[in-house]
Amino acid sequence: MKKSFPLSKVYGLLEPGPVVLVTTAGKGRPNIMAMSWHMMIDFEPPIVGCMISNRNYTFDILKESRECVINIPTVELVEKVVGCGNTSGRKTDKFMVFGLTQSPASCIKAPLIDECYANLECKVIDCKMVFKYNLFILEVLKAWINPAKKDPRTIHHRGRGAFMIAGETIKLPSKMK
Amino acid sequence: MKKSFPLSKVYGLLEPGPVVLVTTAGKGRPNIMAMSWHMMIDFEPPIVGCMISNRNYTFDILKESRECVINIPTVELVEKVVGCGNTSGRKTDKFMVFGLTQSPASCIKAPLIDECYANLECKVIDCKMVFKYNLFILEVLKAWINPAKKDPRTIHHRGRGAFMIAGETIKLPSKMK
Repeated sequence: MKKSFPLSKVYGLLEPGPVVLVTTAGKGRPNIMAMSWHMMIDFEPPIVGCMISNRNYTFDILKESRECVINIPTVELVEKVVGCGNTSGRKTDKFMVFGLTQSPASCIKAPLIDECYANLECKVIDCKMVFKYNLFILEVLKAWINPAKKDPRTIHHRGRGAFMIAGETIKLPSKMK
Repeated sequence: MKKSFPLSKVYGLLEPGPVVLVTTAGKGRPNIMAMSWHMMIDFEPPIVGCMISNRNYTFDILKESRECVINIPTVELVEKVVGCGNTSGRKTDKFMVFGLTQSPASCIKAPLIDECYANLECKVIDCKMVFKYNLFILEVLKAWINPAKKDPRTIHHRGRGAFMIAGETIKLPSKMK
């Protein structure tokens, strides 16, 4: 069961650099895209930069709907993540083909992926870098987490199908946020 | 001994989301900053987006010099990385205090950190998002790697001094670059 997650802590989910699944809802069926080119831009409200190529089906839906969910998968889902990366939503109903479950979001129309341990409901707040760089600026409106996953084994793309799996977490005295 | 690393493969070093150390050289001594808010923007030449707060000493040096090195540390250096994150170059000579070794870069004046397993010499190519977001766009001009580190145990910041250490790498058939 997912719980509401404080917006002030969202940066800690994305800052380690996991591959994420971006869900969008356009006029047709909802779509899923695998993405690892993203970064935090601000803490609270959480602002996220995302690179979404204009060759991707998600690009057009996101430009039009201005909403998406950033879903964070763990290693159990790695085959489905690669499947989503290898196919296009123009031809494939990815929720159906990869056996993923939609849940309704609370603030937007794009669905959450139930199997992912965290879900971030986002709206596009700045499109000025889209034309030159395919760079969308998103604000996270609402975050959800599976509280049972304390040390999520997120996946981190090293290129050409090589994924680093998150290892142990250590804690050091730090003044950094 | 570091070897030249193909620019076409640089994305695979940053895409997994490691904490990096950014070195700059201004009029005074060279400086080091810990950073994890970065993302790939293009493959080749490699273009990287970096968030550098205007409260950081590095911000002013980078704006003026328009050059930096992105150095990628592994877990052996985690205390030094946290040390760099907890101090300011305005007051501290971080190379001296943390016992890190400078090597000359080939294209720019900012130094490489010898102890890091990879080093990316960068120039600033776009400052248009600096005023609003503290977002610098960099081009990687030259990359170096320690070829002995096949599965680098990079560190990934989860917030407030918690670091995920890179675990095993798995390989799946993927059409993704």
